[in-house]
Amino acid sequence: MHAVDIIAKKRDGKELTDEELGFFIEGYTRGDIPDYQASAWCMAVLLQGMTHAETTVLTRHMAHSGDMLDLHAIAPFVVDKHSTGGVGDKTTLVVAPLVACHGLPVGKISGRGLGFTGGTIDKLESIKGFRANLTPEEFVDMLARHGIVVSGQSANLAPADGKLYALRDVTATVESLPLIAASIMSKKIAAGADAIVLDVKVGRGAFMKTEADAEALANLMVEIGRRVGRKVAAIIADMNQPLGNAVGNALEVKEAIETLHGAGPADFRDHCLTVGGKMIELAGEAPGLDAARATLVRSLDDGTAWAKFVEWITAQGGDRAMLDAPDRLPQAPLVETAPAPRHGFIAAIDAVEVGKACVMLGGGRAKKSDSIDYGVGIVCHAKVGDEVARGGPLLTIYANRAGALAAARERLLAAIGWSEEAVTPPVYIHKIID
Amino acid sequence: MHAVDIIAKKRDGKELTDEELGFFIEGYTRGDIPDYQASAWCMAVLLQGMTHAETTVLTRHMAHSGDMLDLHAIAPFVVDKHSTGGVGDKTTLVVAPLVACHGLPVGKISGRGLGFTGGTIDKLESIKGFRANLTPEEFVDMLARHGIVVSGQSANLAPADGKLYALRDVTATVESLPLIAASIMSKKIAAGADAIVLDVKVGRGAFMKTEADAEALANLMVEIGRRVGRKVAAIIADMNQPLGNAVGNALEVKEAIETLHGAGPADFRDHCLTVGGKMIELAGEAPGLDAARATLVRSLDDGTAWAKFVEWITAQGGDRAMLDAPDRLPQAPLVETAPAPRHGFIAAIDAVEVGKACVMLGGGRAKKSDSIDYGVGIVCHAKVGDEVARGGPLLTIYANRAGALAAARERLLAAIGWSEEAVTPPVYIHKIID
Repeated sequence: MHAVDIIAKKRDGKELTDEELGFFIEGYTRGDIPDYQASAWCMAVLLQGMTHAETTVLTRHMAHSGDMLDLHAIAPFVVDKHSTGGVGDKTTLVVAPLVACHGLPVGKISGRGLGFTGGTIDKLESIKGFRANLTPEEFVDMLARHGIVVSGQSANLAPADGKLYALRDVTATVESLPLIAASIMSKKIAAGADAIVLDVKVGRGAFMKTEADAEALANLMVEIGRRVGRKVAAIIADMNQPLGNAVGNALEVKEAIETLHGAGPADFRDHCLTVGGKMIELAGEAPGLDAARATLVRSLDDGTAWAKFVEWITAQGGDRAMLDAPDRLPQAPLVETAPAPRHGFIAAIDAVEVGKACVMLGGGRAKKSDSIDYGVGIVCHAKVGDEVARGGPLLTIYANRAGALAAARERLLAAIGWSEEAVTPPVYIHKIID
Repeated sequence: MHAVDIIAKKRDGKELTDEELGFFIEGYTRGDIPDYQASAWCMAVLLQGMTHAETTVLTRHMAHSGDMLDLHAIAPFVVDKHSTGGVGDKTTLVVAPLVACHGLPVGKISGRGLGFTGGTIDKLESIKGFRANLTPEEFVDMLARHGIVVSGQSANLAPADGKLYALRDVTATVESLPLIAASIMSKKIAAGADAIVLDVKVGRGAFMKTEADAEALANLMVEIGRRVGRKVAAIIADMNQPLGNAVGNALEVKEAIETLHGAGPADFRDHCLTVGGKMIELAGEAPGLDAARATLVRSLDDGTAWAKFVEWITAQGGDRAMLDAPDRLPQAPLVETAPAPRHGFIAAIDAVEVGKACVMLGGGRAKKSDSIDYGVGIVCHAKVGDEVARGGPLLTIYANRAGALAAARERLLAAIGWSEEAVTPPVYIHKIID
């Protein structure tokens, strides 16, 4: 079998076999197939597509390219969630303990932020002492002892995906539904979850800009999950404006803590209840989403979710004092609240622009090697649909330098759309696929 | 400007600008743009295509990626020819001196054989002492002193093409009309010819299998030539059966020598007169193809073409004695003439199979690093349309080992199609485009 023949077959729009995909993915992982062949293949996949069956086989080979975690010795049924990324998306921080406090083990691999989207690992690392880079052994041990663990990706979980993802990034082959689905699902499958809730974002600030693309990706991933014997559901959620109010690592941890105490922004709380509820439902612990949500609301109210959060963060080395007094979390020295320049109804808050303003402040990475400032960010005081008085508080900016603050303020004010007329608040959950 | 954006633009089917193509080709030639980006780009070009204008700009940048020979100081008008390759194609050996003996300078860069197709340089190197790897200075000097030169490709003529061609070969991106056309034309343009006759082969043994593909490639190359201010004509010629009778390096030199003496196989002689005639016509040395051919026939008959051939080969170091006594050319020790197994009319001689039989005998390369045996090969004693008696001479095989001879014989006999009924001989020249 030759790599060039496999590239040619995909170039000609034909379906690759199990054997061919296995040969290609294993060869690429080992380094026998060079980057220049893999990138030509990725471009052929992007332009010629893949059947669902083919994408499933690809996913399986990518998952098996490294270690496959088998968690069944320590937990009979493990649930996981995955978000396709967005601005202000701190869902895992709330959902993981919210679900785990019901005795349902949550073992999750998370990523770091790049570009205008934040990453869960960066947010967690704004808590002093938190250790995100666990070995597979530590991952399993945490899950066994606490029923909850969130780790950065280990080098040997789906290494084919790590290599392919870096290559796709520089060869204009990121935007391929089969490659995106295989990338996400291979990591989830290798990490050993029995049930996976996919939080597929759609809109301005999401990777999927259109409803049709988001739905196609969600359907594809749900089908891959089904074909490999995992329970999978997908939630298609709005990402035109940021999720919740806070954007910036420590600010988002604060907002997650508020939410775990039963408060927090309504949209974010609702989103966490839906994602968490779906996880509970998939695990068979509730007869339906409504019942599952009701269960979760109780554990927010009675403090069990909060207790699980504290157990989890401290077990991974995080500073307990920062959790009890979130003001001790990193905070930038310059804090300015921008007043609304006019009266009106908020018609839009461009999530991309808010995300980019956060990167400008130092809270994100323009390129992978950039370091992150955990204390900077933005808190929006209004959401789309809200009526705001002229001079009322619009948003608060946390910055290290006056120049960056001024530039971010200008960018943020331009990112807000206004209307004279009342604006209907958007629907956050567009669709649930299972 | 970023390479990844240029790949993305082509991936999306958009037309690349002069600046973008220049950035990409220059960056790739220098090594700033890595192979894995170039291969993704090649796949995007293959699947999304290029406009004629875009292909012309690409060709110009590839031509300018290295030295541009300017031959005008030594020759006011230089003509060149290019064949897209086939089996038994020794046209250059005859056409170059045939045209040059009329005072029309012929400066030609030729290639080596790979796979079942032979290469002009290999054929010439079967003549003891012939030096094919000339420096650009030697190339120009030969042209100035003798009005004729054929050299292997120098590393610095269109180096972008050399790199891209090697990459395309291993990434299933060879079969792209714009990339094929740019590859051929960039070398021709860099080599400084004012007029170029393209000998585009079509059929079983050609790179272009269909009339439509051959015509599309011919039209594209003629248009590129026109847009860069060179005179270009294309001949679409049959390559279902081998050209002429001989296949194998020294055997083809012998056949070229016979043809230069006014004899040789009818189809090959006719092909040389058409290609050479078109070169004479493009140079404005004859009012039309018929007049040009008549002129060429005279120089075959009166010995001037032969004299020019001898001058050329000896000037490049070739052994005069081998030219005067072609039996001194390398010849394999085992020679066997296979008799016709039946009576009938020849309906087909599969050029691919004959080419592969020659490779089996050691006369070609399966991979680039293989060495070549100049003395082996095949001479066909009949062409498609000929009537052959049972037991009459069908083909003669020249081999080094009895095992290879037997295997080649079996392959060759299977490559010949027979008919009970009379078969109309095929038309060799399908079309002329100018």
